Amino acid sequence: MPDGSPARSYAVIGLGAIGGYYGGRLAAAGHPVRFLVRSELAAIRAGGLTVTSPHGDIRLPEIEAWDSAGEVPESDVVVVAVKTTDTPGVLDDVRRLIGPSTQAVLVLQNGLGVEEVVAAAAGDTPVVGGMCFICSHKEGPGRIRHLDYGAVTVGRWAPGYAPMGVTPEVEAVAADLEGAGLPVNRLPELGVGRWKKLVWNIPYNGLSVVLDAGTDELMADPVTRSLVADLMAEVVAGAAACGHAVDPTFIDTMLRDTDAMTPYAPSMKLDYDARRTLELPAIYAAPTAAARAAGTPMVRTEALHRQLAFLDRRNRALA
Amino acid sequence: MPDGSPARSYAVIGLGAIGGYYGGRLAAAGHPVRFLVRSELAAIRAGGLTVTSPHGDIRLPEIEAWDSAGEVPESDVVVVAVKTTDTPGVLDDVRRLIGPSTQAVLVLQNGLGVEEVVAAAAGDTPVVGGMCFICSHKEGPGRIRHLDYGAVTVGRWAPGYAPMGVTPEVEAVAADLEGAGLPVNRLPELGVGRWKKLVWNIPYNGLSVVLDAGTDELMADPVTRSLVADLMAEVVAGAAACGHAVDPTFIDTMLRDTDAMTPYAPSMKLDYDARRTLELPAIYAAPTAAARAAGTPMVRTEALHRQLAFLDRRNRALA
Repeated sequence: MPDGSPARSYAVIGLGAIGGYYGGRLAAAGHPVRFLVRSELAAIRAGGLTVTSPHGDIRLPEIEAWDSAGEVPESDVVVVAVKTTDTPGVLDDVRRLIGPSTQAVLVLQNGLGVEEVVAAAAGDTPVVGGMCFICSHKEGPGRIRHLDYGAVTVGRWAPGYAPMGVTPEVEAVAADLEGAGLPVNRLPELGVGRWKKLVWNIPYNGLSVVLDAGTDELMADPVTRSLVADLMAEVVAGAAACGHAVDPTFIDTMLRDTDAMTPYAPSMKLDYDARRTLELPAIYAAPTAAARAAGTPMVRTEALHRQLAFLDRRNRALA
Repeated sequence: MPDGSPARSYAVIGLGAIGGYYGGRLAAAGHPVRFLVRSELAAIRAGGLTVTSPHGDIRLPEIEAWDSAGEVPESDVVVVAVKTTDTPGVLDDVRRLIGPSTQAVLVLQNGLGVEEVVAAAAGDTPVVGGMCFICSHKEGPGRIRHLDYGAVTVGRWAPGYAPMGVTPEVEAVAADLEGAGLPVNRLPELGVGRWKKLVWNIPYNGLSVVLDAGTDELMADPVTRSLVADLMAEVVAGAAACGHAVDPTFIDTMLRDTDAMTPYAPSMKLDYDARRTLELPAIYAAPTAAARAAGTPMVRTEALHRQLAFLDRRNRALA
């Protein structure tokens, strides 16, 4: 942070793979970070936060943590770092965490339309959307394992994903994340960034669950590789129909990047294997509905979505 | 059979769920039936043929069976009753079983284009396509369990599924099957019949494998039910593009019929669970290629096909 200016404070809702990693990096860089958790408060207070990471471990024996929003000190930035399926349960917390000095609400989630849900609780506070390109998972209360990557893209949200340019709130959050050692990409058009992330998430998350396969297996077999590419093309076409132009060469970039990745189980596969609710509304329902409303239905994605909805229901019935 | 006329003789290639059931019914009705099998000949000769069936059991202590086509007496009708994936391996047998008195080759298989493969070996002998609407499976050498249904549709094949009307060979085979107590539907247009069967086979066979679900589960969940209906609509559109008009009301008929069915694992699901090769070329590759060539790609079906191809390869690698 710049010399002399006080470090911006963060209130992070959720201490999982995302909140724990990014909150931990910000705290290690000197920002006051307050975690609001739903459970495991005693264990977290006793054990603090540990992030094991190839980019450098973090060990914070004492962290600020609460399980009631009313006790959390007013903070400059409120971060929503829960699964999209848990967002409705934290909207009251968002309302209570925002104070007169709060500059922004940062939504670190996957999918489309996730900021709009949070914005309903944010009132006049600017909402910044953020996407994390990271392999990490929670190992226990306050214990996060970071495996690879970690870049963040951030952009100012407005209704309908209207382009807003790089606003002061975006710049402030981006500067803090960079100051914490994280690669940051500032998005003048958040909607384009959301759809670009879906180009990866829609094929790999869904097919890894339906076919019980890692990204490496999906890429190694020419039939699934071509299916991945067709799903990506469908997402690019859906994005264009919704007014968010993604260059089609981005598909080849994503395929090559995934070829180069460590074999990886996408977050939806981890959720499925742990019998957690899949993030289908944000990752499948919202983009397919938007594309259909724009006159360009994503029919393969819709089919994959229905397969996932069937599996998700049965999977949780067995839990 | 009509009084005084000798019973038509049948040479049946394959003594599985189809060859065993239909060959058994024809034999029980007095037709000479010769089975050509690839394996288990000693057990079959020792044990004969047993069909347990809600429509009446069949017990034939002695049957004519060989494992070499050269030993099989010349027969009036040659029946191909192996899985489509095994057809290439029996084409030489087809050639050797056909004699001057052979009236027809009857292809009792699922999928599209299956007669064309056999026709290459049949020379000038008329080829009749047949589809079996039946739940049956093989329990052991010469032991077939029939669970339900059993109707057959038969139609004369010509290149490109050109409509041929109900020809004498079709009438002859149909009369014999009816004489054996089986419901028979004579098809003036075999191509329409082939596509109509695909309307059922494409959604239920594929989704039962990919989602590890029976027909009842697929119908009970609204999301998979709508996916089944969309796949059916795609098949009807593909059929129309290929010049085989199927009335769209047929979709509702199929959905209602399946609702009324006993919960059922389609043949492809049984094959998958037994780690047998799936009949993907006949049931998926041929119709999707034909529809795409006709300018109406079946994109959901193509996606399902690729999922199945991935699973099939991995499944057999584990065998």
